[in-house]
Amino acid sequence: MSWKRKDLVSIRGLSPEEITELLDTTRAFKDILSRPIKKVPSLRGKTVVNLFVEPSTRTRVSFELAAMRLSADVVSLDSKASSLQKGETLKDTALNLQAMNADYIILRHQAAGAAQFLAERLKASVINAGDGAHEHPTQALLDVFTIREKLGTVAGKHVIILGDILFSRVARSNIWALLKLGAKVTLVGPSTLLPEEFRQMGVEISHDLDEILPQADVINLLRIQHERQQAAHFPSLGEYHALFGLDARRMRLCKPDVLIMHPGPINRGVEIASEIADGPNSVILNQVTNGLAVRMAVIYTLGGGSLPSSKAGGDAV
Amino acid sequence: MSWKRKDLVSIRGLSPEEITELLDTTRAFKDILSRPIKKVPSLRGKTVVNLFVEPSTRTRVSFELAAMRLSADVVSLDSKASSLQKGETLKDTALNLQAMNADYIILRHQAAGAAQFLAERLKASVINAGDGAHEHPTQALLDVFTIREKLGTVAGKHVIILGDILFSRVARSNIWALLKLGAKVTLVGPSTLLPEEFRQMGVEISHDLDEILPQADVINLLRIQHERQQAAHFPSLGEYHALFGLDARRMRLCKPDVLIMHPGPINRGVEIASEIADGPNSVILNQVTNGLAVRMAVIYTLGGGSLPSSKAGGDAV
Amino acid sequence: MSWKRKDLVSIRGLSPEEITELLDTTRAFKDILSRPIKKVPSLRGKTVVNLFVEPSTRTRVSFELAAMRLSADVVSLDSKASSLQKGETLKDTALNLQAMNADYIILRHQAAGAAQFLAERLKASVINAGDGAHEHPTQALLDVFTIREKLGTVAGKHVIILGDILFSRVARSNIWALLKLGAKVTLVGPSTLLPEEFRQMGVEISHDLDEILPQADVINLLRIQHERQQAAHFPSLGEYHALFGLDARRMRLCKPDVLIMHPGPINRGVEIASEIADGPNSVILNQVTNGLAVRMAVIYTLGGGSLPSSKAGGDAV
Repeated sequence: MSWKRKDLVSIRGLSPEEITELLDTTRAFKDILSRPIKKVPSLRGKTVVNLFVEPSTRTRVSFELAAMRLSADVVSLDSKASSLQKGETLKDTALNLQAMNADYIILRHQAAGAAQFLAERLKASVINAGDGAHEHPTQALLDVFTIREKLGTVAGKHVIILGDILFSRVARSNIWALLKLGAKVTLVGPSTLLPEEFRQMGVEISHDLDEILPQADVINLLRIQHERQQAAHFPSLGEYHALFGLDARRMRLCKPDVLIMHPGPINRGVEIASEIADGPNSVILNQVTNGLAVRMAVIYTLGGGSLPSSKAGGDAV
Repeated sequence: MSWKRKDLVSIRGLSPEEITELLDTTRAFKDILSRPIKKVPSLRGKTVVNLFVEPSTRTRVSFELAAMRLSADVVSLDSKASSLQKGETLKDTALNLQAMNADYIILRHQAAGAAQFLAERLKASVINAGDGAHEHPTQALLDVFTIREKLGTVAGKHVIILGDILFSRVARSNIWALLKLGAKVTLVGPSTLLPEEFRQMGVEISHDLDEILPQADVINLLRIQHERQQAAHFPSLGEYHALFGLDARRMRLCKPDVLIMHPGPINRGVEIASEIADGPNSVILNQVTNGLAVRMAVIYTLGGGSLPSSKAGGDAV
Repeated sequence: MSWKRKDLVSIRGLSPEEITELLDTTRAFKDILSRPIKKVPSLRGKTVVNLFVEPSTRTRVSFELAAMRLSADVVSLDSKASSLQKGETLKDTALNLQAMNADYIILRHQAAGAAQFLAERLKASVINAGDGAHEHPTQALLDVFTIREKLGTVAGKHVIILGDILFSRVARSNIWALLKLGAKVTLVGPSTLLPEEFRQMGVEISHDLDEILPQADVINLLRIQHERQQAAHFPSLGEYHALFGLDARRMRLCKPDVLIMHPGPINRGVEIASEIADGPNSVILNQVTNGLAVRMAVIYTLGGGSLPSSKAGGDAV
């Protein structure tokens, strides 16, 4: 199939076929990343603007490197950008970047819907790098890519998403991607962070981690954003670890080859014990590597590119 | 003619012929920006340093993209640079950048005269990206380029500059450029922000906006820098809008094809009503696009380049 | 000889032959920097990450430009990086960067040993850009390169290192480099900033500057980091200047061709009088230029490159 969308705003809006096309393209770019010359000339002369109104070093660097390896020019703006501080609206900022002939705008923003808002108003391709508690589509793509890579397929696998579901755009995007690709999804977490309404999305909900662990093919741990918690959604970090932290005892309840995933940055000793984060079941760093390949694939695909053949890939810059 | 200057410090110091040469070169670069591959190899191996002691995201990004599209390497330093915070003098910072073989230093600084100070001391080309309330030459060049593009010529046109004239380097550079190219210029604004001394530059002054509007071919609105106002130069933003804001009623007093310009970022509802900023007479986003082409032309011309022919332009990186 | 190390963590751990190899390679890169096209394609498709947990604009820019001139892709993170502020460990940050296929990590960190810690845990090449009061190897390399360039050789020369020795990684790395290359080193400074234990490294210590000045071939002035001083190690900046500042009177005590060096940023009127910093004996800006060549040489050499021949150098990007 050939890609039709200008933007990547959500996973919810994609068809299973579109997700699969992006995963297949990611596969091709991952090969390129393993070469000595990790660069292709596909986006030479194109401009990618990272507009990170909400800060995120890790995701920004991943998108920067993805764009550079496609030979695009990259410019980054953050929340301390003077025009944003002078009260310029998001729309005006984006129209200005478009007037400078930006081809892609990568947006991270604290407001749900910000990426959709821009996508409807700009000719440039908008990629949602996280909008409030709404979606974070490239994170979900790299997560399902990692599952497919390690387990061969996503369909039929049982994935537990564990932690702060309520505030998590990673959870929402993952749920959509996993369900569209045929996985079974169970959400686990403190009831204050796991509203019953999520059942309407088509997932199971459990509050008893130890009971559900033996069924899991994949456990995707969410980050406890303790620096953000305004209200007390759980008593303490220590208590969270006791009730929902993944440690050696709980690992023994799991299937021997269960995949342990985490979007990072990890809180060692809170949602995950250090020995598990660094252990043989952890694919946390594989996720980071795959994130780069996914972002190359997304930028490339939105630009109307077709799958890089080995010949095109070999024509490296 | 062939360009002789190492630096671009002011419009005041340029001849009409020099301004025209820069505008003609801008024209050539604007063609390049409309191509799929917006890049030429002219400055390969050259280094451009953005030294923004006073912050400005918008202008910094415009210069960054201009330099990248000329294939230069670009490094940016801002006011939070640790050496500046350690009390290093501007001259020492610049001598260090020159010792690192910087070919161009783009300087924005809160002190009038800062660019001239550096230009006299460095072998590198210095481009003034705004120095205090003195000058902002590339802004004036993009403004007269936009007028010439839309109206065919600058000579004989009547341009109203409206707003905070007193603190505005944009106003000063625009006045010089417009007068040198033969336009008629009228300044309008609150008397606290519009000293009578400006008449000595060769412009008219008016405090009655509604009376002068019908004569204008161009209205260039300056930004009310309310985040900077120390003293109260006018009673309130609401009162400013009533007295000097451009709204639908005032637009009906204007010629039907009057050009509405603004250097940005705009304050919607203060110096300009939203419907006018987004309306058919507004060329505000054209200015942004032209700003990039002007900055490419300036960097290119100071480096001793001659006009890119269509052949050279076609030899894209 | 061919280089064996993956990392550059310290000068102490290098042999004199290794230091000499890096200096010879620096010589070759300095030639490249004097060309109109200051760029070679050696590191095309490689990624250099500047991880500056402790801020330093000057050193960051020098490494950025060095990497760009080798045609590498460069990404910079500073202490305000959100993941660092969220409490991620240094090791996790670095493992993430490695998972993004970073080939080089340039680390500046306030903790002595930070670079060694990373070097042992990463496949990427780690370059120490300053770790606490421990070492700053590229600064020492550029210093001995400058001495060799100006005086023909380092062996047998008498180098005075003057100032805040106690807190200085520049002093420590310089001492190791100078002694390994056969120089005589005398440390001078206030006794509170110059512990007797330094004699064990094989250097002389003096507290009488005027007496020792006539013997010096080189005077390397350290920066008084007055913005960092917690305790009062000397009474005042004025008193420091009187006792240890280099001024015109003291210059008359020196050999006529003594080299005056300083790692920058300089405090004019504190450790050095303005007229001396800008005078004929000063090689302070030469050091800056050589710093870029040294950093190109180090990045290039750690990557397994051999000396660029004039042919390779001519094959510019």
